[in-house]
Amino acid sequence: MIGKMSRWEPNARGRLERAAYELILERGYDQITVADIAKRAGLTERTFFRHFADKREVLFGGSAALQDELLRALAELPPALPAIAAVRIAVEAMSAFMHGRRAYARERQRLVAAHADLQERELIKRATLTAALAAALGQRGVPEPAASLAADMGMAVFYVGFVHWLDDPADREMVDIVREGFDQLKALASGA
Amino acid sequence: MIGKMSRWEPNARGRLERAAYELILERGYDQITVADIAKRAGLTERTFFRHFADKREVLFGGSAALQDELLRALAELPPALPAIAAVRIAVEAMSAFMHGRRAYARERQRLVAAHADLQERELIKRATLTAALAAALGQRGVPEPAASLAADMGMAVFYVGFVHWLDDPADREMVDIVREGFDQLKALASGA
Repeated sequence: MIGKMSRWEPNARGRLERAAYELILERGYDQITVADIAKRAGLTERTFFRHFADKREVLFGGSAALQDELLRALAELPPALPAIAAVRIAVEAMSAFMHGRRAYARERQRLVAAHADLQERELIKRATLTAALAAALGQRGVPEPAASLAADMGMAVFYVGFVHWLDDPADREMVDIVREGFDQLKALASGA
Repeated sequence: MIGKMSRWEPNARGRLERAAYELILERGYDQITVADIAKRAGLTERTFFRHFADKREVLFGGSAALQDELLRALAELPPALPAIAAVRIAVEAMSAFMHGRRAYARERQRLVAAHADLQERELIKRATLTAALAAALGQRGVPEPAASLAADMGMAVFYVGFVHWLDDPADREMVDIVREGFDQLKALASGA
């Protein structure tokens, strides 16, 4: 029980995210209400609105988990590692976190593509993640502009890889696509 | 007369942008009204609102000009040029376009930093520019994911360079900072 529930259910927020995740996959985002999500989580609508401003907000709960994974992986690396090598390892760790989530990620991507306000939130999320990565590199002693450039490159590989992963005909894991992306980045940049 | 006026005054939109630009530098954005901008341009408020939804919108008029410069420079390059080399030349051309605009860019940046909604518009503008660059590379025959990665790298160098240019102690031109940025990108990526 612990193994299955620990990621999602230590608290109301996690239970609501898990319920939304299941319902979105079962019925599609447009077909579910906040009441449905709360009911599935065994909670009230009022509790939902204590944690999320609206139904859309629940789609962005995963971004904090991604950032935690990215910064946790980075913090474990030896300080002497070159900036881009550290970024590569941390972004690959974040990509491994997507394992098993492709069906949900596809449904979520379809939603985001259809709504300008969700696209804006996605851009803000990307900018926030990138800034957090650049700041963490700065704390590792990487000077500017190298810290910002390395963070931008890493996030570019992540997001370009993400889009390809959603429809990858070979059905590879996202982390494998991201690994290839870093090799392509290196090959591309050598021509600058 | 043509030389001085052609960039800004072939039409009402250009005259309003020019008037806003001058007034922002003279008095600061917060001190001016749409009426002030229209009066300086020799136009009515009603004309202003035919071209811009609100006062903030006039701050984003330059982004279309930047994109035009980027795509124009790219279109002139021989098709056989490697993706990142083409991106470098086009982004450097776009950076040269910032010549003489640093005081305005600084005032504008101060405004954007102070308002979340302006930051969102900036992110959308960056995403739009990056997507346009990736699409133009695709039309040149660059396959995915190389087109998207090269576009992201070029825009990263542009925006990181932009921020440094605003406060560069050596007072260099933005295009010189961007040139250095591409060299740094290449050196950084070689460690991936």
